Amino acid sequence: MTELASLDEQELVVRLRRGDQRACARLMTWAERNDPRFAVQHRAFCDELGVAQRIGITGPPGAGKSTLVEGLASHWRESDDRKIGVVAVDPTSPFTGGALLGDRVRMSRLVLDPGVFIRSMATRGVFGGLARATDDLADVLDLFGCHSIMVETVGVGQSEVDIARSCDLTLVVLHPGGGDTIQAMKAGLMEVADIYVVNKADMPGVDRLVQELFDVLELREIPEDQQPPILTAVASTGQGVPELAEAIDGMVRDRRDSGRQAERRQDNLERRIRRLVDGRLRHEVWQARGLSDLLHQRLAEGGKLSAYELADEVLDQYQQAAGHPANLLGNISQTDPEDSP
Amino acid sequence: MTELASLDEQELVVRLRRGDQRACARLMTWAERNDPRFAVQHRAFCDELGVAQRIGITGPPGAGKSTLVEGLASHWRESDDRKIGVVAVDPTSPFTGGALLGDRVRMSRLVLDPGVFIRSMATRGVFGGLARATDDLADVLDLFGCHSIMVETVGVGQSEVDIARSCDLTLVVLHPGGGDTIQAMKAGLMEVADIYVVNKADMPGVDRLVQELFDVLELREIPEDQQPPILTAVASTGQGVPELAEAIDGMVRDRRDSGRQAERRQDNLERRIRRLVDGRLRHEVWQARGLSDLLHQRLAEGGKLSAYELADEVLDQYQQAAGHPANLLGNISQTDPEDSP
Repeated sequence: MTELASLDEQELVVRLRRGDQRACARLMTWAERNDPRFAVQHRAFCDELGVAQRIGITGPPGAGKSTLVEGLASHWRESDDRKIGVVAVDPTSPFTGGALLGDRVRMSRLVLDPGVFIRSMATRGVFGGLARATDDLADVLDLFGCHSIMVETVGVGQSEVDIARSCDLTLVVLHPGGGDTIQAMKAGLMEVADIYVVNKADMPGVDRLVQELFDVLELREIPEDQQPPILTAVASTGQGVPELAEAIDGMVRDRRDSGRQAERRQDNLERRIRRLVDGRLRHEVWQARGLSDLLHQRLAEGGKLSAYELADEVLDQYQQAAGHPANLLGNISQTDPEDSP
Repeated sequence: MTELASLDEQELVVRLRRGDQRACARLMTWAERNDPRFAVQHRAFCDELGVAQRIGITGPPGAGKSTLVEGLASHWRESDDRKIGVVAVDPTSPFTGGALLGDRVRMSRLVLDPGVFIRSMATRGVFGGLARATDDLADVLDLFGCHSIMVETVGVGQSEVDIARSCDLTLVVLHPGGGDTIQAMKAGLMEVADIYVVNKADMPGVDRLVQELFDVLELREIPEDQQPPILTAVASTGQGVPELAEAIDGMVRDRRDSGRQAERRQDNLERRIRRLVDGRLRHEVWQARGLSDLLHQRLAEGGKLSAYELADEVLDQYQQAAGHPANLLGNISQTDPEDSP
């Protein structure tokens, strides 16, 4: 680490391009910490990005998303020696070490494969927002030379679903016996799926779940030729994984050729920029301008004030400060917990 | 509605205080739409707030949160004729009409009780953020005269958990056979619980789940006297519900007496103000200053630009505009989708 610490920053990107794992990890750490050095690097290498296909994988806890990620990674490693990146934004993911021993042992095979780079992120403690960090990590993996990047999120909260959606393609993974699966899907999951995967297809209730999915698609009145395909798999045994991998690759090809991928990337880029701007403004208000202190002071004075009234006060102060543009945009510290409290 | 539409706004609050359901619904609609009239009203009545106890209820889909809410509501209605408010921020909740027929029939008994006011919110289409709207709805229910307000959210995504946490007391509801329950709990659920409820306690696996909970609490090294109690219930039959209601009431009393409730409310107020300020700034940047248009224009020009570079451009423009304070803070339109896209 001391060796890398003294590395010229330009050299870091050169190393990353050549597939240096430690350079990759270093840049990812900068990204996670919202270190301003990452933004500098990003400006330098952004025109090389967009080579990898990015696949978002989401679904309720227990659907077997990580096992499926592992299955797809193994398949692509064997079939065409494809370099794989994984970003697990999921505290329940075995990649984060939160799993049963059996899962961890299985995952360790992947972890030891130099053709697979796995990064797991806790949902707390990432500065400047999870979605921002996820995009940045995927960019690093892109430059690192990964052909397929899988982004795994738990798919119940809206923000988690949105992260999976910010990929070229989104898989929604379900399992029979999930009970409230279809219910849970109303939380935005339904709309983001490019492919449905009914995993654990060796368990009872598969046919019913598939039928329910068809019913929901019909209710939404999506023309048949535009309906997301519904595939079944048993990720733990590998059953259905080659077919899924093929469906993904085929869809990526089609979308690249039809220009739909470019459109989607444009939309994702716009959302990403909005998040960046919002994050910087939050920093500006609360840290750089010291309005956190003002707020604490006002709160300490007590009395029953309307939240709206105090918000106005803070914004008034900000407005006055913004009249003096010095320091308005700079000074993004790397220890800035923009997304807290 | 025409009658209410012509209502003097001051009269609306007078009616709300007297328990007028339509006035309540009207103010809630303003709150959901982030209508500036709500903020005006809020300033006027904020010093009357804080009477009700607010209980956040969260947990994975399928844990039976809504049934538990219904059970608690029924219990409190019968035991002391307590007026109850429910805010369901949960697309999987039967309150939102997304449930099985049996559930809906059961819920309808509550819906017909004039002593219970239920409002369900979709997680999409609420302007200015879900958490903001939830706080505002709870305030309306407080002024409406509710003694206990229950806020139900699905507890997997961080933002949903945070909403449940912004109450006086947070219940985390789990069920045996949830499979990845303990795993899912790492997503921030573990830390927010004031009381754990193991629901569906007539199903196999209860003892194991309770033991797992104890183990996790032990791992976190929480002193025994500060550990959140773990209660069991079968909400569908009412078993354990009176005991839970008593535990909630007792904890609310203790915290009120010890001053801990006031502390927690202060923390919640601070987070709420931060959310308001952030929302207003987002509006300011993207709507009032027309920077959405600028961004679209830049994106349409094409070329591979770094997200960071474009974010800088937008912020530069904002900085210049902010030098002219006119219109900087006003003009929050009621059709402002602050939290999209």
